[in-house]
Amino acid sequence: MDRFMNPKSIAVIGASEDPQKGGYAIVSNLKEKFPERLYPINPNASEICGLPAFRSVGDLPEPADLAVIFIPAGGVPEVMEACGKKGISRIMIQSAGFAETGPRGLALQEACVQVARQYGMRVWGPNCMGMVNGRTGMVASFMRPDIWRGHLKPGTVSLIVQSGMLSAGFVIQILKEGFFGLSKACSIGNRCDVHESDLLEYFAEDPETEVIALYLESIADVSRFRRAMARLSKPVVLLKGGTSTEGAKAAQSHTGTLAGNAQLTEGFLRQMKIHRANDFFEMVDLTRSLALWQGKKGGRGVGIVSFSGASGIVAADHLERHGLTLAPLSGETLRTLEAIFPLWMNPQNPVDLWPAIEQRGLHAYAAAIQALLSDPQVDALYLHLYMDEKILPQAVDFLAPLKGTAKRAAIWLMGDPQCFREFRYRVEPLGVPVFTEVGRGAQALSLGSTF
Amino acid sequence: MDRFMNPKSIAVIGASEDPQKGGYAIVSNLKEKFPERLYPINPNASEICGLPAFRSVGDLPEPADLAVIFIPAGGVPEVMEACGKKGISRIMIQSAGFAETGPRGLALQEACVQVARQYGMRVWGPNCMGMVNGRTGMVASFMRPDIWRGHLKPGTVSLIVQSGMLSAGFVIQILKEGFFGLSKACSIGNRCDVHESDLLEYFAEDPETEVIALYLESIADVSRFRRAMARLSKPVVLLKGGTSTEGAKAAQSHTGTLAGNAQLTEGFLRQMKIHRANDFFEMVDLTRSLALWQGKKGGRGVGIVSFSGASGIVAADHLERHGLTLAPLSGETLRTLEAIFPLWMNPQNPVDLWPAIEQRGLHAYAAAIQALLSDPQVDALYLHLYMDEKILPQAVDFLAPLKGTAKRAAIWLMGDPQCFREFRYRVEPLGVPVFTEVGRGAQALSLGSTF
Repeated sequence: MDRFMNPKSIAVIGASEDPQKGGYAIVSNLKEKFPERLYPINPNASEICGLPAFRSVGDLPEPADLAVIFIPAGGVPEVMEACGKKGISRIMIQSAGFAETGPRGLALQEACVQVARQYGMRVWGPNCMGMVNGRTGMVASFMRPDIWRGHLKPGTVSLIVQSGMLSAGFVIQILKEGFFGLSKACSIGNRCDVHESDLLEYFAEDPETEVIALYLESIADVSRFRRAMARLSKPVVLLKGGTSTEGAKAAQSHTGTLAGNAQLTEGFLRQMKIHRANDFFEMVDLTRSLALWQGKKGGRGVGIVSFSGASGIVAADHLERHGLTLAPLSGETLRTLEAIFPLWMNPQNPVDLWPAIEQRGLHAYAAAIQALLSDPQVDALYLHLYMDEKILPQAVDFLAPLKGTAKRAAIWLMGDPQCFREFRYRVEPLGVPVFTEVGRGAQALSLGSTF
Repeated sequence: MDRFMNPKSIAVIGASEDPQKGGYAIVSNLKEKFPERLYPINPNASEICGLPAFRSVGDLPEPADLAVIFIPAGGVPEVMEACGKKGISRIMIQSAGFAETGPRGLALQEACVQVARQYGMRVWGPNCMGMVNGRTGMVASFMRPDIWRGHLKPGTVSLIVQSGMLSAGFVIQILKEGFFGLSKACSIGNRCDVHESDLLEYFAEDPETEVIALYLESIADVSRFRRAMARLSKPVVLLKGGTSTEGAKAAQSHTGTLAGNAQLTEGFLRQMKIHRANDFFEMVDLTRSLALWQGKKGGRGVGIVSFSGASGIVAADHLERHGLTLAPLSGETLRTLEAIFPLWMNPQNPVDLWPAIEQRGLHAYAAAIQALLSDPQVDALYLHLYMDEKILPQAVDFLAPLKGTAKRAAIWLMGDPQCFREFRYRVEPLGVPVFTEVGRGAQALSLGSTF
């Protein structure tokens, strides 16, 4: 797999001179981190994107590590044959028009697999958006350059998405929101050969990958998936499409695979200790939480500190729903809290901090955070903040006690949403994910099989 | 209740000269729409916010329609006594320090109720943020003026929130995001007298209110609530805090009331046909959907049009979870779709529009939307769009067939989040709510008891 992720030379079959076309975007995207040994192939062009173009695969000066194919489906088996003869062993077919289009497309896809077997090639796709290596900046995809440029951030999360269009939109939104940095984002499409288990096996050994997020409509090879998961000591978050009867039927025509039986996979996935998400940004929220919490410990007993009684109550409801509980506070914690509260107030968990904030200002947060994090009965902390542009500049200061804590902490924000992104940029580097729905933060805190 | 919502004269007891204080903010907020007959009361000031101040309630030139009280809790019963003598019959206590603080506060709160009974006064609060009338612009609350100014928008939604701090943050976020315009936002706090059923009865008759959102930790008077709901022909969305054991315990110390038994209220609320939300912005999303869909019909059979096969599949999963189903498409609809699709594609629901978009551009959406909305088997439409700054300017154009449809439609967006707010501002006036989680839109489409 590493030759897909880190090729030293790439041929682009179907490179185009027209900047509006995907075959131009592939070359242009790759060129950013591939100034050398990038070979556009087009029988009618001499130069593409400032690079000399080759008429055919046979004309290449070397067997490239990877060939990206973006020509009409009908011509793919023939060009793969040429790749095989040239000694190219890694093929990424980004064109659509295969199994997802019906029996004719399926036959075409099977022809590609035949060629691959004959020459011992590995094939990625077809009907996919390719891959993005967030560590090297390599974008092997036909997505528009303006979409990712300036937003690609290296990170520890690797994504595997069994879909075409979705993966592009998804990666763009993740990058533009700065939800997390990427290790590798892989759109695997119809999975005629390379599938999720190949990638899981690779990510098990990849030191650049710490957390894996998966969108799958089915598991290509259940026993290999089971073995790959058993070997993997990194957290995996899965969104499975086609869990319903009608969703499964739709999945069949989408990527040409039969979505697995819902009940069967439910039990199976629980057994594999895979974290389940039911929606796209639920998957993102759970994944970025796990990425931020690497090396931190959670647990069942959660301490809540809130500016609002109501949000503490609703959070308690969600924690219970997710199998967590309100941690009882130790005598020492209660004494610390009593010192910052007005006399009439008996502090308890959830800590409704407002009376203390009224008396002592936002610094009351720092004292309460410190107290709860030091409490051996508190396994994790859930903070609720009102945020606006007046409070934003002070936030990193009064949240300083979060820095370096070995316990999981999460923040829920309410207030002026125009400050939320900036708040996240400032505070998430402390290793604390920020949420805008109380329930989502509670769900994230419940992730983990050790408690 | 109308005298609380639309008073002709207001006395502010506890008005302050200090712009940092809540007692100043109340006067300053009210003054915006109350240039006359607004009476700040402060024994030590002659002028507040440019208005002549009065030393005591007794000095007022008339019995004001409403007295807003914001003085330390201990002094409230006495000042209410003065209000009673003056003939003031509507009291809104925004101060905290009552039942929520323990036995002493509870006794104080009961003393207030005694005075109210004696003089036949109605009392709103205590421990609340007051109310905002989105139609008149009247802000009877101590929240900072910079928070709501420029964002208050008249609308058809009325909010009832049994909480103090939360309601302010909540209203601010709703206003700043432009989620919906407000009819009335009511923070009712400890509900020593006025409670949700008083307001529900009022909103039943209020022509300015079409949809009601409620945050409650308990129902103050179950049989009155039942009667009020039976009389009400407007949709209600409820977030109930304290549905869990620990949440209910926390609720008791929050607003001084016992949160009702979860199982009991669950069945009861279903019977009342109340829409349930489990989170704050889930409540907002369901409420704004109902507000946008006033006069439109939904139904079980949903048609999905998507740029991505995967999102259509995940949407189908969510629809099934919420009791909805994929509508079978009529022969006419299928023929219309076939005309815009490439030959190999057999259109079906969910409609994976990408191959048509590739051939015909974004206008394929207009044709598909038109076809599905005209299909008698399609009760509601769920559109999935990829959005960025290049597509945004064309959106209102290719979504034009949504205009004036009698069927419910919802949109899910993926792509560049920096365009999402602008997209919402442009497209929601078509009567179509916009979502960023697939599941949330599916949940909204499932609202309604007629199918």
